[in-house]
Order: sequence, then C-alpha cells, then structure tokens
Amino acid sequence: MTNTATSKVSVTKINEGDATVQEDFLAAEEPLEIRMITGAPGNRIKKSISVTMRTPGNDVELALGFLFTEGIIRSMDEVKQYDEAEENVIEISLAENAIPDFQKLERNFYTTSSCGVCGKSSLDAVRTVVSLQSKSDEVKIAPEIIYSLPSLLRQTQHVFDQTGGLHASALFDLSGNLLLLREDVGRHNALDKLIGTSLLNSSLPLNNHILLLSGRASFELIQKAAMAGIRVVAAVGAPSSLAVEMSKEFDITLVGFLRSERFNVYSSVDRIVFRQEAKHF
Amino acid sequence: MTNTATSKVSVTKINEGDATVQEDFLAAEEPLEIRMITGAPGNRIKKSISVTMRTPGNDVELALGFLFTEGIIRSMDEVKQYDEAEENVIEISLAENAIPDFQKLERNFYTTSSCGVCGKSSLDAVRTVVSLQSKSDEVKIAPEIIYSLPSLLRQTQHVFDQTGGLHASALFDLSGNLLLLREDVGRHNALDKLIGTSLLNSSLPLNNHILLLSGRASFELIQKAAMAGIRVVAAVGAPSSLAVEMSKEFDITLVGFLRSERFNVYSSVDRIVFRQEAKHF
Repeated sequence: MTNTATSKVSVTKINEGDATVQEDFLAAEEPLEIRMITGAPGNRIKKSISVTMRTPGNDVELALGFLFTEGIIRSMDEVKQYDEAEENVIEISLAENAIPDFQKLERNFYTTSSCGVCGKSSLDAVRTVVSLQSKSDEVKIAPEIIYSLPSLLRQTQHVFDQTGGLHASALFDLSGNLLLLREDVGRHNALDKLIGTSLLNSSLPLNNHILLLSGRASFELIQKAAMAGIRVVAAVGAPSSLAVEMSKEFDITLVGFLRSERFNVYSSVDRIVFRQEAKHF
Repeated sequence: MTNTATSKVSVTKINEGDATVQEDFLAAEEPLEIRMITGAPGNRIKKSISVTMRTPGNDVELALGFLFTEGIIRSMDEVKQYDEAEENVIEISLAENAIPDFQKLERNFYTTSSCGVCGKSSLDAVRTVVSLQSKSDEVKIAPEIIYSLPSLLRQTQHVFDQTGGLHASALFDLSGNLLLLREDVGRHNALDKLIGTSLLNSSLPLNNHILLLSGRASFELIQKAAMAGIRVVAAVGAPSSLAVEMSKEFDITLVGFLRSERFNVYSSVDRIVFRQEAKHF
C-alpha cells in the first residue's frame, strides 16, 4: 500500500435522514501513460502506447505486466530499462535487438482494459503464447483450499478496507498460501500489476499457482491469466460466457461464485479433488 | 432482455465438498465492432472506430450512445442511418454535412471503456459539451427517494437475477419512478446503452433525472453522465477520487455506498433536502 493509493475527501453521510459531514478515504484513480522506446542505436523511437486509469502504486509492474500480457514483450531480456519519466508516465526502453510486432500491438489494443477484443485475431495471439507454456500439469486442489482463499485475501486487502473501492488480484500457491496481492480501481490493472511483479521476480510462468479475482471473471482477465501460464483461476463473482469458453479452450480451471463453503467450476474440473464423484442432475 | 443476453453452460457446483453437475446461465459477453461512415456524396469513407466487449442487445443504442458520450455526434440530426451490418457489427452512417472531429476522436479513444484517459484534453472535451447544457437547475430530492432506488432496480434487473454477472445503469425521474434500465457485462456499455436510448427517444439532456449505477462510480461513468446532462448520480458502490473531482467540477450530485437507509454524498449536496442541517464533526 502506498500513500497515494487513497485520497481523503469530505463527505456528507446520510443515515435515516440525518446528515453528518466527515472525512473519508477513496480509492485514488489517475491516468498512467505507458511509453515504449525501441529501435537500433542512433535511431531510437519513443511511442505512447497506452493510457490507463489506475490507482497509483506499482506503476512499473503495471507497465511491464501490460506489455507482457499483450504479447509485446516475452521476457525481461527484451527490456533494457524502465523509468518513471515524469509523474504518471512510465517509459519502457526495449533492448536494441528486441523487435516488437507493431501490427500485433495495434491488434492487441482491442484487447486492453475492457475495451474489447477483435475476436479471432486476439485469440490467435494468446494461442501462440500459451502454446509455449507447458500444457501438462499435475495440479490437484482440494475444495477446502479454494474455500479458504477469499478470507485470506480480505485479511490482507488494506486499501479495500479503507475505501471499498478496489479490485484485487491475488496469487496463492497450491497449499493456499497467499504469495502476492495487487489492488487497483481497474481489475485488469490489478492483474497486470500482479503479472508484471512476477515477471520482475522471474517467477513466470505461474503454472503451480491459483489466481484469485475479487470480482467477476471476464474474457480479458482469463486472457491475461493464460498469457502468464496460470492454470487455476478462482473468482468471487460471476464469469462471463466468453471467459468460460476461453478457459475451456486453454485448459484453465475456472471457479466462480466462490463463497465460504461453496463454489462453481466451469472448466477443467479434473484439477479439483472431490470427496466423491460428481452427481449429474 | 434479449435471448442472447444470457448463455447456458454446464457447471459443477461444489457445496461443502459435494459436487453436482447442473445447467446454469451466464451473462453473455461478445465483441461489438462500431463502424462509422462519413464524407461527401461519392466520397464516403467507412472506418472501424471501436471494438468493445459487450452483452448482446441494444447494440444500436450502445453504438449511438458511445458516439454521443465521446463527443463525436451531438444529436440524431447528424445521423443518416444505422444498421446491423453483420453479426456483432453496427454501422452508423453520418449525414453528409456532419464533419466529425477525427482528432478529437483519436484523443477520446483514451477515454473509452475503462481504458483510461489523457487527463486534461479529455476534461476539456467534456467541458465544451457540458457548457452547452443548462447549468442552472432546481433539482431537489429527499433522501427517501434515494433510499428507494436500489430495490426498484433489483426488482427489474432480470438478467442479473439469472446470472449475477451484469452491471446496470438505471434512469429515474425525480419522484423515483424507474424510466429506463440497461444491463451489460461492461458498466460503461450499460451507460452508453442508456444514453443512446435516450438520444433515440429525443429525451436528452437528462437534467431532471437520477442515474443509478449498480456498482462503483469511476471517472469514465461521470464523464458520460456529464455529457448527457445528468445532474444526480447515485452509485451502490464506492466512487473513485477522480469521479468525485469531476462531479465537483461539473456540479453533479454524486451519491455513493447507497444502502437501504443510508448513503454518502460527495459533491453538490445542496440538491438533497435534509430533515435538518448537516452536523460537522
């Protein structure tokens, strides 16, 4: 939690018709511009490639995670330098021999930040990357581990406690230990921050982990998870139809409506170890 | 509610360790491409201007609402024709004499769909439009009207009941009567659908109405509300810091954390009529 993740305001609180004026904290929302510097020595070009509304904090991780989940960079070997060039601006300088696919970049713009996606071409982009990850895994998880995740998240989600206004992405190991938590006003940003941190820590792919989403699971979040090699995604909220389709296609176990003693599994249910066989109704 | 707003899936439901397989409904999520046709006769140009992930239904309204809230069209006089050109593609043909500001369009792309915003220039765009709306109003609302809104919304939000997966934007008159409801997996789309419908109905500006948001209030939603001339926005969830700043700047009454007998007011509190004067703590 950084100091700038929250913002203090004066608020009039109405309760059964009575009004009191108090100070309160809100989740901070500010624009972040991501610039990329590429090209051969002596011919470097700087381009603005994204502006996202985000909660300040972990900005470098957000920028790196965004470039990674959009398929623009594949590893930190392609990154020469990263800087906060000015307030709310992160500049990522690529290695001279890194040649980003600008056409892909343009195509992938459709997939950013809930803006949507140009269906097929975008799925192809993910398919390319995901195929590089190991497809076989022996991940098995007991329901009790899944049940425990939201309360572990809530115990650690400080900014949410203060503001009620943030989405969270949390990474757990297969025993249910919380490894990493990132929060943001934008759920896509929270996940980019988490994946960017993992990229910096050299811990990708995250194929022996569980990703917990504090809200709903959209296509975009599953796409980003797939890029990071995540095999198990658990959402406290509902999944969308396309999130389920994509999870099936990429063999991701997608859990939704996660409550204290129950949840739904929409895909690759074989990674969940039940007490007994599923009954069909 | 259209048939395509939901999608049926098979789901494994885990409850205290027992698993059952059932059919369930999810909120549908599919890409929608918006194309715009402009230019003088004999020299018409077609451009793809946006692809958004949305829940199918009210697609024309979504496209028109998007163009309006981005400041690309000002009224239906500038629209010659609108069509579903193919599945998941809406084409909006502008009148020959309508000359959209393509530079503004590019700039405004930063403000779409939670993608973010290039702070100042975007605020300027909103300022220009909002200054055209009447600034003076005599809107006064009793807290009891505000309290009643979420339950009225919930009674009507059918797709949410089925799926738990949709955001809603609802329009009420000042007496608390529900006039219009739109749902979508993207909260920005739900609001664009609502505003696009109002544009088609010739009911803009919405300066004698209350807008209810089923979730959190972000900068982007307040920006869209401002473009439609809305003076009162009530959110069930938390506002962001920038949503509050923008509401103050444009004299919008912003209500957050709306519960059955209580809520917070973050800006222009003078439109709420209290039983007694606010106490300062």
